[in-house]
Amino acid sequence: MEYQDSEKAVEVATRVEAFMDEVVLPREREALANDEVITNDEIEAMWEMAKDRDLFAPQMPEKYGGQGLDFSDMLPSFEQVGRSLIGALSIRANAPQEGNMHTLEMVGTDEQKEQWLRPLVQGEISSGFSMTEPMQGGGSDPKMLRTTAEKDGDEWVINGHKWWTTDGLTADFLLVMARTNMDAHPYSGTSIILVPTDTDGVNIVRNIPHMGGHSITEREGGHAEIKFENVRVPVENTVGEENEGFQIAQMRLGGGRLTHCMRYSGMAERSLDIAKAYLSKREAFGDPLAEKQSLRHKIADAETKLHAARAIVRHAARELDRSEARIEVAMSKTYTANVTNEIIDLAVQCCGANGIGRDLPLAHFYEDVRTFRIVDGADEVHRRSIAREAFEDIKEEELEYICRFDTNRQMH
Amino acid sequence: MEYQDSEKAVEVATRVEAFMDEVVLPREREALANDEVITNDEIEAMWEMAKDRDLFAPQMPEKYGGQGLDFSDMLPSFEQVGRSLIGALSIRANAPQEGNMHTLEMVGTDEQKEQWLRPLVQGEISSGFSMTEPMQGGGSDPKMLRTTAEKDGDEWVINGHKWWTTDGLTADFLLVMARTNMDAHPYSGTSIILVPTDTDGVNIVRNIPHMGGHSITEREGGHAEIKFENVRVPVENTVGEENEGFQIAQMRLGGGRLTHCMRYSGMAERSLDIAKAYLSKREAFGDPLAEKQSLRHKIADAETKLHAARAIVRHAARELDRSEARIEVAMSKTYTANVTNEIIDLAVQCCGANGIGRDLPLAHFYEDVRTFRIVDGADEVHRRSIAREAFEDIKEEELEYICRFDTNRQMH
Amino acid sequence: MEYQDSEKAVEVATRVEAFMDEVVLPREREALANDEVITNDEIEAMWEMAKDRDLFAPQMPEKYGGQGLDFSDMLPSFEQVGRSLIGALSIRANAPQEGNMHTLEMVGTDEQKEQWLRPLVQGEISSGFSMTEPMQGGGSDPKMLRTTAEKDGDEWVINGHKWWTTDGLTADFLLVMARTNMDAHPYSGTSIILVPTDTDGVNIVRNIPHMGGHSITEREGGHAEIKFENVRVPVENTVGEENEGFQIAQMRLGGGRLTHCMRYSGMAERSLDIAKAYLSKREAFGDPLAEKQSLRHKIADAETKLHAARAIVRHAARELDRSEARIEVAMSKTYTANVTNEIIDLAVQCCGANGIGRDLPLAHFYEDVRTFRIVDGADEVHRRSIAREAFEDIKEEELEYICRFDTNRQMH
Amino acid sequence: MEYQDSEKAVEVATRVEAFMDEVVLPREREALANDEVITNDEIEAMWEMAKDRDLFAPQMPEKYGGQGLDFSDMLPSFEQVGRSLIGALSIRANAPQEGNMHTLEMVGTDEQKEQWLRPLVQGEISSGFSMTEPMQGGGSDPKMLRTTAEKDGDEWVINGHKWWTTDGLTADFLLVMARTNMDAHPYSGTSIILVPTDTDGVNIVRNIPHMGGHSITEREGGHAEIKFENVRVPVENTVGEENEGFQIAQMRLGGGRLTHCMRYSGMAERSLDIAKAYLSKREAFGDPLAEKQSLRHKIADAETKLHAARAIVRHAARELDRSEARIEVAMSKTYTANVTNEIIDLAVQCCGANGIGRDLPLAHFYEDVRTFRIVDGADEVHRRSIAREAFEDIKEEELEYICRFDTNRQMH
Repeated sequence: MEYQDSEKAVEVATRVEAFMDEVVLPREREALANDEVITNDEIEAMWEMAKDRDLFAPQMPEKYGGQGLDFSDMLPSFEQVGRSLIGALSIRANAPQEGNMHTLEMVGTDEQKEQWLRPLVQGEISSGFSMTEPMQGGGSDPKMLRTTAEKDGDEWVINGHKWWTTDGLTADFLLVMARTNMDAHPYSGTSIILVPTDTDGVNIVRNIPHMGGHSITEREGGHAEIKFENVRVPVENTVGEENEGFQIAQMRLGGGRLTHCMRYSGMAERSLDIAKAYLSKREAFGDPLAEKQSLRHKIADAETKLHAARAIVRHAARELDRSEARIEVAMSKTYTANVTNEIIDLAVQCCGANGIGRDLPLAHFYEDVRTFRIVDGADEVHRRSIAREAFEDIKEEELEYICRFDTNRQMH
Repeated sequence: MEYQDSEKAVEVATRVEAFMDEVVLPREREALANDEVITNDEIEAMWEMAKDRDLFAPQMPEKYGGQGLDFSDMLPSFEQVGRSLIGALSIRANAPQEGNMHTLEMVGTDEQKEQWLRPLVQGEISSGFSMTEPMQGGGSDPKMLRTTAEKDGDEWVINGHKWWTTDGLTADFLLVMARTNMDAHPYSGTSIILVPTDTDGVNIVRNIPHMGGHSITEREGGHAEIKFENVRVPVENTVGEENEGFQIAQMRLGGGRLTHCMRYSGMAERSLDIAKAYLSKREAFGDPLAEKQSLRHKIADAETKLHAARAIVRHAARELDRSEARIEVAMSKTYTANVTNEIIDLAVQCCGANGIGRDLPLAHFYEDVRTFRIVDGADEVHRRSIAREAFEDIKEEELEYICRFDTNRQMH
Repeated sequence: MEYQDSEKAVEVATRVEAFMDEVVLPREREALANDEVITNDEIEAMWEMAKDRDLFAPQMPEKYGGQGLDFSDMLPSFEQVGRSLIGALSIRANAPQEGNMHTLEMVGTDEQKEQWLRPLVQGEISSGFSMTEPMQGGGSDPKMLRTTAEKDGDEWVINGHKWWTTDGLTADFLLVMARTNMDAHPYSGTSIILVPTDTDGVNIVRNIPHMGGHSITEREGGHAEIKFENVRVPVENTVGEENEGFQIAQMRLGGGRLTHCMRYSGMAERSLDIAKAYLSKREAFGDPLAEKQSLRHKIADAETKLHAARAIVRHAARELDRSEARIEVAMSKTYTANVTNEIIDLAVQCCGANGIGRDLPLAHFYEDVRTFRIVDGADEVHRRSIAREAFEDIKEEELEYICRFDTNRQMH
Repeated sequence: MEYQDSEKAVEVATRVEAFMDEVVLPREREALANDEVITNDEIEAMWEMAKDRDLFAPQMPEKYGGQGLDFSDMLPSFEQVGRSLIGALSIRANAPQEGNMHTLEMVGTDEQKEQWLRPLVQGEISSGFSMTEPMQGGGSDPKMLRTTAEKDGDEWVINGHKWWTTDGLTADFLLVMARTNMDAHPYSGTSIILVPTDTDGVNIVRNIPHMGGHSITEREGGHAEIKFENVRVPVENTVGEENEGFQIAQMRLGGGRLTHCMRYSGMAERSLDIAKAYLSKREAFGDPLAEKQSLRHKIADAETKLHAARAIVRHAARELDRSEARIEVAMSKTYTANVTNEIIDLAVQCCGANGIGRDLPLAHFYEDVRTFRIVDGADEVHRRSIAREAFEDIKEEELEYICRFDTNRQMH
């Protein structure tokens, strides 16, 4: 399917596609076929290649070593990296690193950018975003956030309990959401604080055992449960304005939701590629499976819905480049999450036992994509926002017409 | 939802929206509330108003009295007219008239345009498109077309049996698909011939009783079953090149499918407007129904899918303005048909008994939209095309990878 | 599919099936093919035949001329009658007549049975059940019922506004739900009162225009909007105990919901029969449509879901013969309503233009079955009941386990 | 939900339920909470307790130490064991062991029963069923089976390549499907041969990495890929009649499909129990999640569909106790597989991040249940059978009616 992406966007994406086809996917296939682990050295070698090919960190400004693309223009590149289990990692466009980069780049001080952002982009260090808490804190309802940071002189003293901090096991620093003004509503009393993980009182409790969770790379950042006990960091570690943590998080998450959509769209497209190849190759009852109309038609519907997802993500990315685009992002996220789940489920079904086994990447995809309907706002949270907006827009004339009946009926 | 439509498109659509809100919808509501029929005189008065407001026949060149918009630019106007049962009719953008205009404008001779197109645009005469035949002829498989036209001197002699000719009861002329070269494959041996309905041998058998079929206007064009028995018309009545009827029909239908999508999107949007107003007004168990989360969330999903439909129809319209866009149109048509069916079904459910009754337009919408998954290519036909294209694009690398396993497994 | 129905049930159903195949369906097909109306005389002739064949009014005791079957045993007969548009009518098992018979038989006085039930069973008179009111009254929330009956001497004086009284246009009497004790909760202050339609103050306002509504019989009972203005009937016209109207209505509706399920299951089965015959007969692209795997598989799913519906309706009927079976009935009703809607939609799609036309009964079925998700408790109302029951049954151990995590997490 | 199960069935199931609640589920919860592995000794201790409580191996005759229940009567017990990850294992009712027991009990010789069945029931040895082959062999199309067994004197010489042999890593013997008469159609030329795994030439290649695959028990039977290279076993090891392997496998699989349905129904029920407890406990935006109508209604639908699944599995079990019940089993399998997948997906969604993590069993369930739509006949295979049966039953009258139109239309 051709889209009306900008020339720049197409140009970078074409190089990303070639990198995936020539370097990344062949290595992924090899690793799966032989049950091998891809080493850190290999990943770092890919980063070098990506730099040589001018496609490293498309989301970052050129001065930090990226390609300087906005959401619309990074879109087709991010779709491409989603095709491989290690695609985003291979060009340093993987969550949560790219979202953390985005946050620092957007609201960080010059010092923070120099000290943390520059090496983060280069992959010299890693990071985590500590928002979610056990018992719903840091989830859809901001009132439930419990982690606090109190000022003591020129230091923050942080206490709290976070979990599901992605890449938390290998992070060098964490961006921690904490309430910094207990008297205010959390929306205006929460801050983001940068906490190096080697600070006293930072306790990485465990990698939370979770669905899927079979990494094919040596480095396993995991989803960490972390306790913060009287953790002290300088007040300068505040990221963005004090007490504006939720606003910054929303900006971070708006973009993050869309980049997730892009990557998962690529994953779904790859799944269809595999399913179609598989069906073309295998036979039953004397015909290639690809001739069986039932699966063909389901694949047609899958292609159609994936096209629809890609179209509304593009629309939302264009809007996000110039506004908050809250509803556009919510619709894109919930729609893409559901459609990519459906499509990957279909691809698994098409490949039968090979869909369940790990010689193909589909089982990994299946386990991975399931989280997408929950993280970054569960479906229910986005539906809530979309519905609220929808019901703000009641047409007066329709209301009057309906009321007229009632009056008629009551009067007589 | 804001789209990135052109200034011209938005400008006309804004006027169309106002016309609907100020003139057309109030009259529709009145007619429904009082079980009245809207007369031909009233419709003609609307045409005059539409001309005064510069929004008559947006799809036609200005020299025939239209607004000269291409597919992309007519789109938001066509969405607007879909909101009312008589919206498209009220500005002469209703099927099949607008498709027939489009065909004559595209391939008609100057004489045909002068004699038939000009008065057709003005609403002085009406037309039908006689393609479909009983027993699948003229449907998805061109080989099954049975109607023939044989040359006898400078006349065509037409014999055949058509049905489901929309507006056939009131048509002044028909565009008839007939095989004109029996030795060729129908794709290169079929022509479109213009047949005035008062020609000898044209026999309008009946208005086929069908789902819905409750017109709220005086004029009831119906879906006609028509027999052609030795019907003679001059050879000059060939519309477009002889034997290229299928190519012309495809062009006509490509655009027609999209304009259907636009109108039905508007119908779905209106249905949601009504449902939301209704839910806001009615109560059960102490709360307005609008507070009931289950229907709210379903409405959120409906808004999301409608947005997706509108986005891919826009994409397809842009492509259609410069290419055949066969797959884009097929995806748009089947997706929009299914989504608008779902949404209107939901709106009926939201309104309960009022969704079933005819004081609201929803029952009409429900009956009407059901046909959309069948006409202009049933879902199954479009899925077939989409799948065929999808399976032409098998990735070699995936195929090789799969084959590698097989070899491994067989060798040992 | 074979069920483990009782011998008696199978025995009557076999006769009903034969009656449908030999008498009723042939006449239905004839009427559709020729766009004819089936006369009252014809229906009465069918009643005579049904009596001769010992299958008249299966739901009524033999002393009133019925077959004396309980819910379990009437089930397969009611499935059979659902196959035809006039099947239930042809053996006097049609709603709302059979539900009204059931009510009078269950709680009526001997005098009421003699005066009203006996001729009602015989078809000498007809009846309606006036429960639903405009603006949600008489719907899912009993508090919204507004019709009142006040005692004045030995008469009830009834005032109120009802609508959607099925067969209200031709009814000789109505069973009217009215609040008879305004100080009590409606559950214990509402009565059912028998009102002859020729009583002063009974005003049949209109037949509510509604979805479908194309009867193929001469007699058109309609769905009536009715006003009651100072309508006086003797207090003896109370049906069942005074102030126990809701309890009686629940009994009536519990059974009524199941008999609806039975009839609509038959309608769905017939739809599949037609779709399969159609697909076997028609061709496209060189094969019979029946060979097209996509529709075949959808029909397989339809058969499976219909089987599931029939199985749970059977289970509910067995339970209803010995208990209230509220949840069993709610599940059966909402599941069957949705499944039969889906199946009939599929059958329409299978038959293409013939599914939309009225030469086949599918368009009638499609319009008719849509009401089933709304009447007798909309889906939402039944889901509400099922959920309430489900959440009453929280497992203590699961709760404790979940709480344990929270404690752990909070403590440290 | 109450079913009309036999007294015996209910009586055993009540004891199984208590065993799950008192012994098995508490241990499962402990193991998950602490990320512990349940040892073989613990499992063996559970077997002893199960014997003491008279609920060990319900599917086996009492003379082998089981409870002697037929399919109908074991049903509610098998539903109970499905509630825990180790439930079936804890009473020795786990696949594939119970299916292999069933096969040996059904067609094994007295010697085979003494040597293999008796210790198998007792858990002294373990077994595998080697049917599936790479490249579709042993799948839905029997013609693709490639493994062969040739007679050499009084020995079979087996060559072939199998995979997905569940419990293959720990099996003491395998039941191997092999072609034994190459001239016959596989349906009448295939045998089942018992092969001890310590026989020369049996090569357990690997445990196929697959979706999920996180066992919480010490013993990990896995899904093995196995090569058979000139494996020699005595001809007496034929299980059942020579060349009747497919018939026996069908009998085995018919029952196996149903017992899978029973266990997965229990898994789905447990998932709903957990989801409901979770929703009751957690809050968002000021209310317990359990008050949120959208999830409540989805749970209502889930309960309804699970009820439908359990009803048709019961129906099929009753039929299977007296016939082949091929279509009943196919419908039960495909319906239950889809419904339990949906329900477990819903439960994951209800629990959010806790649905993804492994403190609860839901992530395990989610990964596990996905296989159920593929193993024991993929959905597509069962739909194929159901459709074939459905299309054998075309009603003559419907066909004639449709043809009549065609004739009318062609004649004139």
